[in-house]
Amino acid sequence: MDLKLELQKKADLVENALEKYLPKGNDPQSLIFESMKYSTLSGGKRLRPILMMAACEFVGGNVEEVMPFACAIEMIHTYSLIHDDLPAMDDDDYRRGKPTNHKVYGEGLAILAGDGLLNYAFELMIQATLKNDKNLEKKVLAMKEISTASGIHGMIGGQVVDLLSENKKIDGTTLDFIHNNKTAALIIAPIRAGAILGGANEEELEALTTFAKSIGLGFQIRDDILDIIGDEKKLGKKVGSDIENQKSTYPSIYGLDASKEKVNELFHKSVQVIKHFGDKSEFFIQLSDYLVRREY
Amino acid sequence: MDLKLELQKKADLVENALEKYLPKGNDPQSLIFESMKYSTLSGGKRLRPILMMAACEFVGGNVEEVMPFACAIEMIHTYSLIHDDLPAMDDDDYRRGKPTNHKVYGEGLAILAGDGLLNYAFELMIQATLKNDKNLEKKVLAMKEISTASGIHGMIGGQVVDLLSENKKIDGTTLDFIHNNKTAALIIAPIRAGAILGGANEEELEALTTFAKSIGLGFQIRDDILDIIGDEKKLGKKVGSDIENQKSTYPSIYGLDASKEKVNELFHKSVQVIKHFGDKSEFFIQLSDYLVRREY
Repeated sequence: MDLKLELQKKADLVENALEKYLPKGNDPQSLIFESMKYSTLSGGKRLRPILMMAACEFVGGNVEEVMPFACAIEMIHTYSLIHDDLPAMDDDDYRRGKPTNHKVYGEGLAILAGDGLLNYAFELMIQATLKNDKNLEKKVLAMKEISTASGIHGMIGGQVVDLLSENKKIDGTTLDFIHNNKTAALIIAPIRAGAILGGANEEELEALTTFAKSIGLGFQIRDDILDIIGDEKKLGKKVGSDIENQKSTYPSIYGLDASKEKVNELFHKSVQVIKHFGDKSEFFIQLSDYLVRREY
Repeated sequence: MDLKLELQKKADLVENALEKYLPKGNDPQSLIFESMKYSTLSGGKRLRPILMMAACEFVGGNVEEVMPFACAIEMIHTYSLIHDDLPAMDDDDYRRGKPTNHKVYGEGLAILAGDGLLNYAFELMIQATLKNDKNLEKKVLAMKEISTASGIHGMIGGQVVDLLSENKKIDGTTLDFIHNNKTAALIIAPIRAGAILGGANEEELEALTTFAKSIGLGFQIRDDILDIIGDEKKLGKKVGSDIENQKSTYPSIYGLDASKEKVNELFHKSVQVIKHFGDKSEFFIQLSDYLVRREY
């Protein structure tokens, strides 16, 4: 299996589905449709929807059925970036080389576009849930995974502690909390939701959950590492910003070598729990390798 | 029936349920719990949850079952106020006589508290949906009503057009769009959701929807009127702010007399569609009278 090709194939499916699902029309409020589209279709890796699709396929489910949920999680991810970039939060002018949402549409509309995307993600999932009442409960369970992970006991909770930790020295426990909630929660949720939608049995769900926790944390620590040793050209963004902003990271607390060691350990753990599922685990094993060793 | 007593009884139930459902605990992110609670428990009229409870009772449903949904819509209403008060939006320092959320917790946390409340509203409804799988579809249908009304084709859509209309003369069509989406949508949705959860038949649902549309618009026009003729002491806020901010309102476009006439007409229409249901329509008839003729 060629991982890059497989990722591209899945990302293309996500791209098409997002274009299909994003609101359009010539209504009086259509500027917010444009603003939502601007940030959603600005070239992300589509990692979270891809994980959901892959988890669904892993357990033998039909990937068509997860697409609204996969798009919903990408919209939730996008809204969190729009709000994160606001002057009252990280105050970023650029993201992925393009002006941030509030730089283009103004702060007021950027706040509303974020709210709109979060709300619309639920609209999309609810509509998909009602489309075919055969799998009603599974779909509501998938929504539960996603809504818990994106809320105050997940991503938002992590952002709160991140915000409160600005310009402060924090300890390893606090950093773990931020990493696990701000980043890992939205890596774990699409995998669990995809597995549930695909009809996973308990053994599969448990293995995929452990796998997801490992790559979720590994992905974030790798991010911290890349901010030190990364190549600006490959990354497409400045390195050294964590040190510049005196931000506590895994390497700043535990050191660079221990961080690399930890990522390695998480990679091995992630492989360990899924390799006995045979051929179908190949995609996830290659993906884990890519995520925790990536150069960008 | 004593309307004031009945409203108070229902508001007390909502208050207790909100306290029960709001997140608590000594977690690292607990400051956001405090911030969410600060704005949610700051003495609103609880109109939207009361409407939902009343609609459920109107069709003979069990009001206990709607409480998580009733609290969810109040949390959505609260989040919209928090974001609306932000400097990038209406820039208000006070609401109901208390400093606004961002004045107490800072802008960053206020944005996150709003996001948190919106997300948490869905968490609450999803949990309630899964609690008892007998009425799964009804509950998802209720979520659909609420999510559509609070999104870009409802409340957020209205706020966008309101924001874009600042300091501009707008026409009646645009004002209707703002009123119908920014305010009426979140009056209609709790009534329809409460009716659906309570097991309404088609005739009941249709009558309640027409009723809801009438009082939703009437409520907002009355708001515009009170900003001109209201008593500051009774209202607990300054009057004349619409004129001061050169905001287009129903009276500024159609005149004060025509506005009063319109409210009257909407009141009669609201009564017309539900009075033939007999005794059980008394609460809604009295409530409509109160809402469109209120002094505060």
